[in-house]
Order: sequence, then C-alpha cells, then structure tokens
Amino acid sequence: MALIVMKFGGTSVADMDRIRNVAAHVKREVTAGNKVAVVVSAMAGRTNELVDFVNDATDTPDQREYDAVVSSGEQVTSGLLALCLQNEGVAARSWQGWQIPLLTDDAHGKARINDINGDELRQSIEAGVVAVIAGFQGISPLGRIATLGRGGSDTSAVAIAAALDADLCDIYTDVDGVYTTDPRIVAKARRLQKVSYEEMLEMASLGAKVLQTRSVELAMLKNVRLAVRSSFDDPVTTPAVNMDGTSTIGTLVCSEEEIVEQQVVSGIAYAKDEAKVTLISIADKPGIAAAVFGPLAEANINVDMIVQNVSADGLTTDMTFTVPEADLPSALAVLEGHKDVLNYKELLGATNIVKVSIIGVGMRSHAGVAAEMFKELAAKGINIQAITTSEIKISILIDAAYQELAVRTLHSLFGLDQEPE
Amino acid sequence: MALIVMKFGGTSVADMDRIRNVAAHVKREVTAGNKVAVVVSAMAGRTNELVDFVNDATDTPDQREYDAVVSSGEQVTSGLLALCLQNEGVAARSWQGWQIPLLTDDAHGKARINDINGDELRQSIEAGVVAVIAGFQGISPLGRIATLGRGGSDTSAVAIAAALDADLCDIYTDVDGVYTTDPRIVAKARRLQKVSYEEMLEMASLGAKVLQTRSVELAMLKNVRLAVRSSFDDPVTTPAVNMDGTSTIGTLVCSEEEIVEQQVVSGIAYAKDEAKVTLISIADKPGIAAAVFGPLAEANINVDMIVQNVSADGLTTDMTFTVPEADLPSALAVLEGHKDVLNYKELLGATNIVKVSIIGVGMRSHAGVAAEMFKELAAKGINIQAITTSEIKISILIDAAYQELAVRTLHSLFGLDQEPE
Repeated sequence: MALIVMKFGGTSVADMDRIRNVAAHVKREVTAGNKVAVVVSAMAGRTNELVDFVNDATDTPDQREYDAVVSSGEQVTSGLLALCLQNEGVAARSWQGWQIPLLTDDAHGKARINDINGDELRQSIEAGVVAVIAGFQGISPLGRIATLGRGGSDTSAVAIAAALDADLCDIYTDVDGVYTTDPRIVAKARRLQKVSYEEMLEMASLGAKVLQTRSVELAMLKNVRLAVRSSFDDPVTTPAVNMDGTSTIGTLVCSEEEIVEQQVVSGIAYAKDEAKVTLISIADKPGIAAAVFGPLAEANINVDMIVQNVSADGLTTDMTFTVPEADLPSALAVLEGHKDVLNYKELLGATNIVKVSIIGVGMRSHAGVAAEMFKELAAKGINIQAITTSEIKISILIDAAYQELAVRTLHSLFGLDQEPE
Repeated sequence: MALIVMKFGGTSVADMDRIRNVAAHVKREVTAGNKVAVVVSAMAGRTNELVDFVNDATDTPDQREYDAVVSSGEQVTSGLLALCLQNEGVAARSWQGWQIPLLTDDAHGKARINDINGDELRQSIEAGVVAVIAGFQGISPLGRIATLGRGGSDTSAVAIAAALDADLCDIYTDVDGVYTTDPRIVAKARRLQKVSYEEMLEMASLGAKVLQTRSVELAMLKNVRLAVRSSFDDPVTTPAVNMDGTSTIGTLVCSEEEIVEQQVVSGIAYAKDEAKVTLISIADKPGIAAAVFGPLAEANINVDMIVQNVSADGLTTDMTFTVPEADLPSALAVLEGHKDVLNYKELLGATNIVKVSIIGVGMRSHAGVAAEMFKELAAKGINIQAITTSEIKISILIDAAYQELAVRTLHSLFGLDQEPE
C-alpha cells in the first residue's frame, strides 16, 4: 500500500466524460489498496474563458481579483470529480487551496508556495477518503485566493506530494512519457523509462513541454518521485509506473542516483522560438558588453546565447546573441535607441534559427562529447552559429532549415535510436 | 452619508456589459458619499450550467460537492465586478462567503446563516473600499462551502445589511418595484411606495416573485429596510429610494409603523401552481382528517387549503384540499394506496384552479373585508371553492377561467386603481 498523488491537466478533465475517465483511473488505484490525493486543473478552455472576462473588464487587472475569478475553474473540477468518484462508490471529497490550507506568498497570479499544513488533509486520506484538490491555487498571507500561474497545477501536485510524503506523484498528461526527442521529428524516438530531475529540468526549459519547470525544481528539492504518464491509457488495466524503471508505460523522474545505467546523452531537445540579433562592427573595448546588455536587461529582455567574434583589426568586432522570438522587435528597438553609444555599423535580426541541445548527466564524466557532436554536424554540412554549455547540456544555434537533420543526426550519434542494453 | 447594501441578481450581471452597468450603479452611490457593500448572484444561466454538470456526474449528489461546484458562479461575478469598479476608479475588492466569514449551519444546498463576523468587512468598507460579496454562499462549521439555496443571494444581502447595521438594503431586480397586483393582468396596477414586511411576506409566498420569502423574514426579524428597484434604470441619474415613501421609483419594504397612511388592502396576489384534490363520500368520523393528511405529510406533500363539507347524512362527507401542482400525481398515488382505510367513493384531482388573495395589514382593524370581497365576487358570478384566511390575508380558490376577472374586480373594489390620497 502506497500513498500516491495523481495529477490531471485540463485536457484530461475537459468534459464530464473525461472526468469520469479520471475517476476510473483513481478508482483503479484505490482498488489496488493505495491512499490517493488527486490534483486537478480547470476543464480545458474554461480558464481562457475566465481570463477573457477579466480582460473585458479592465486592461490592468488587480491580480487578486484575477485570481478570485480564474481559480473558480479548478474549484468546479474538484467538486465534479469528487461527485463522479462517489458515484462509483469511492469515498471522496474536494479541497480548495484555502481549505487545506496551501499557503502562498502574495505574488498574485504567479504566487509561490510557502507552506502546506497537510494534517487535516492527511487524516482524511488515511481514513480512506480520496482528496480531490483544486490545483493551481492557494491562500495568501492576507487570506485572498492566490494562483500559482499557468501550469501551476503541476507545482501544486508536487508540493502536495512533498507535504504528504507521498511515495509517488503521477502526472497524467496527453503524452505517454518523456521521450529521447520529439517523436514527430524522429521516428526512432524512444520513451525514457527513467530520467533524472536535472535532465528533465533542462528538457523542460528547452522546449519539451511535458512538465512545468517549477514543478521539476520543486520535485528535485523535495525529492518527490514523479511519473509522467498518459490519461488516455485504459483506466482499468493500465499498470503502475514502477520505481525500478522497468515499466512498460510512462517515465519516472527521479534522482540521478536511482538511475544505475546512465547513458551519456539522455535526450535531444530543440527550441524554435528564439531569435538572433547581430551587431556588426562595434567597438572592441572594455564595457561594450555592458553597454549592449544593460539596456536589454532594463527592458526585461532575456538574453540567452552570446557570441563575440575575435577582433580582426583589434578595434571593432561583431557580436551575436539570442532573445525569445517574441522579444525581438523590442530588442531591436532598444538597440536602435542606443545606436549613438554602441556605434555599430549594422543591426541585424533573424528568426530563421533553431536551438538544438543534447542533455545527459553522463556528460559530467565523459570528455569529448562536444567534439564528437561538432564533428558529426560538420560532416553533415551543418554550420554552428553559437554554442552554450552547462555541466549536463550542450546547446547549439543553427539555421532552422537543418533542425530535423541535426536532431536525427545527434539522436543516432549518441545511441538513442536503440534501447540501451 | 449612509452605509448601503446593494444586491444584484443573475439577470443584472448576465454578461460583461450588464456587470459594467452594475458598476455604474455602484459608482453613483459612492460618488454620492455612501459606503457600499454589493452582493451579487452568478451570471444568469451559469448556475444552471453548473447544476447540469452535477446532475451529469451523479443522480444523488453529495450536497457539499454540489455547493463547491455551484458557488463558483458567484465567485466569478464578485471578482469581475470588483475589476469593473476598479476600472472606473472606484476602490473595490471581492469577498467570498468564507472570507467574511459568513457562518452557516451544515444543511448544504439550503443552509441557514448562523452568524456573520463583519469586523474585517466593515473596516474595509469604512476605509472606502467597496465590498463586492459573492451572494448565496457561506462556510459551514466544518469549513466547507455551503450555499443558501436558490434565491439565497437576497438572504445574503439582508444578512450582510443586518451585520453591518446598514441604513438600507437595495434589491436591484428586473422590475421597478412591488405592485398592487400583476401589471400584466391589471393595467391599473400601481407601484407601491411602501409595503410592510408582513404584507411583502404574504405576497412573496403567494406568488409575487420579487423577493425570496426567507430574505423578507430575515429583514423583518433584523429590522433591515429593503428597497426593491430596477437595475435597468439609468445608473447615473436614477434617484435614491427615500425612506419617507415619497420616491418616484422603487418600493420600500419596512415595518408597519413606518407606514402612516395604511390602506385596508395593499395588494392582490394570485397563484396558478396549485391543484385541487377531492375525496367524495368518505366516512364522517373522528380521525378521518388524520387518516387523509398523515400519509400526505409522510410523503412530504404540503397541503394548503382544506374544506370539509357539512355531512348531509351524518355518515359520509366530501373533503377538498389543495396541494402544489407538481405534487398532484404523488398525492393521488398516496391516497389511492390508502383507499382501503379511507374508503372513499371517488378520488378527483384538478388543476384548473387558481388561488387569489387580498393582502393588507389594514385588515387587522377593519371588519367586514371578507364579506365585501365575497359579495362582489358573487355579483360577478364567481364561485368560491375554498377559503383560507390569516390576520392580514384572505385567500380564495376559484376556477382558473375567472382569474383575471377576480383580480381586476378585487383591485377596483379595494381602491387600488387610484393612488391613495
């Protein structure tokens, strides 16, 4: 018997039939003898409808009122799932964020969880009553409803799992696990049986939208084991995601130590929503980087990869960096506004680029991974425009036309096309 | 400067334009220097949508979960109205039932208000912040959301007004006041400037659906002065409902003592949703009434008017009574099931009847009102099938075909066609 947290997103509770399907998933776990807390999102589309109401009311919403309005979506789902469970003979009750209470800070609309008093919740669960928890919400120090921001239900689920000291936090979604890369691009992409928090974090922040980054950070911090699995699997016969990574379904996200046979590279991620900015012929002198990036930081624009060419004449150089695609117009505007200081010859913006990354904790103990990567890409005629690295990740910027080729090439190169031995 | 409570029902907040209209009504009162609490219902149609979800989930809903689901409608409206007010430069915040807190008993779905701790609410209002309160809901002794039942927002408003010791509770609705009778039937029906709680109670329970009966009872008990007025009046220029009953708009509902020039009859009400049951030739012996009405009470069927004819032969008699139209089939079934005990000759059910009532606190001090009423109806050829009376009301049961004639006749007879001097 285990205590498990099950989390279902908006598409998994989109209508009454989908909610009944969720109830069947929960009933399976209860029948297997587990104690269960369920965290639910709003029915798909409902949050958007509520946000539209708010935007119709005012251009500058008070975030506390925004939260009061949009949090109602999860409240509805929690009550409805409790009713569907009761209808199936499963004891259940709904819990709103303020009822637990799930205490947050007062950063309404994007609140962080401060603490969860899980005593009453745990007693109820231990007594055999499934706890159906409205995700995405808590209560602020002043007693107002505070939402955790988009995707916050993942974070709710992990925080609840930590507070309850749950054995597992199952994240039910519309994909059946975490893959070595995007299966839509690489037919040979494989489901990972296990992935470490660190790798999952890099994948999440690099465009694999399975889990919200914050929820993975929290899971790592609190050592909550996550399983990513599909709510579309048959709710009665689908097996559990095993802790030993031998499951035929889902992906276990756990600490590095639990993954005995570590691949050097676990996955290949890509991100298309980046844009490239190039400053041609700026002065190559101390302080020039600050002069470029200071104004961008003030404009709240995140700069990711930066390349500064070696100066040919010792006087001027070219500088290239990436920003989120959505921020490109404002980035260009900021730099045009500082043209007199920066004194560049030309300012170029481009969106026909893609960032491709290889991720794996095994890179820590394996030298030469980058060299191998660059050599193979060169052999395919792929030009690398910029590079960034971390301990467990190497990212390159390439022409968007080569995206699929690069991802497939790297997927083969690092042995991801076959199951590991 | 006064402290006023303003209540807006579902049709008054049906969409964003209507909510903006409500904000304009509230802004007018704030601009006039008043301190304001607003109680809102769910957007029209939303509660029904949520109830449909619940009924889709289960045939026998846990009322606590029902309450969690349906109370979300008022939560949404409260946040949206607060945002619309802020957008108009009016300081405002939303309050959910549990935030006030408005403490109820645990009769979920039809909870009664036990107590309201209005301290924090009052401080906020006194500080100039309009309180936008989600109607229809409170918090139970076990910390669950409890709804007050359909129409409960009126009751919320009155209870809040009592807790805040408000000067006036304005009930905004889709009619512009309480009328001497239904204007759709009698063209000469007049808006009453004042009506007493007692009269309003009789009117409410007799089919004038302007105010929920419970809210009037509570207003009488707590001596909260109500004004019934229209949310369709121009929100900027519409005047206040005066306490002295000289207003050009609305109806003040207040204690009898505040109404100096009392009419004998204040209004004529009618109710079409009654059905008549007749037992022909039952034994005229002690205990027969108990034998008839005991089983009906057990079946939870409310019996209203009862007529037992004088026995002609001293052995058998006929008995007639009314039940709500919706309960007629089950009433007949119950009586058929007891045929062996009751031993009646014939059992008749009819729905072609209407109950017409004259209401007025002035009847207390005027004899002969009933005689006048019966004489005039007889002159018009209207046969009276049953009669019930209270201190301030006389109700008769007649053939439904005579409904309009009876209402018009009584409206004229008791001087309601003209303004009182």
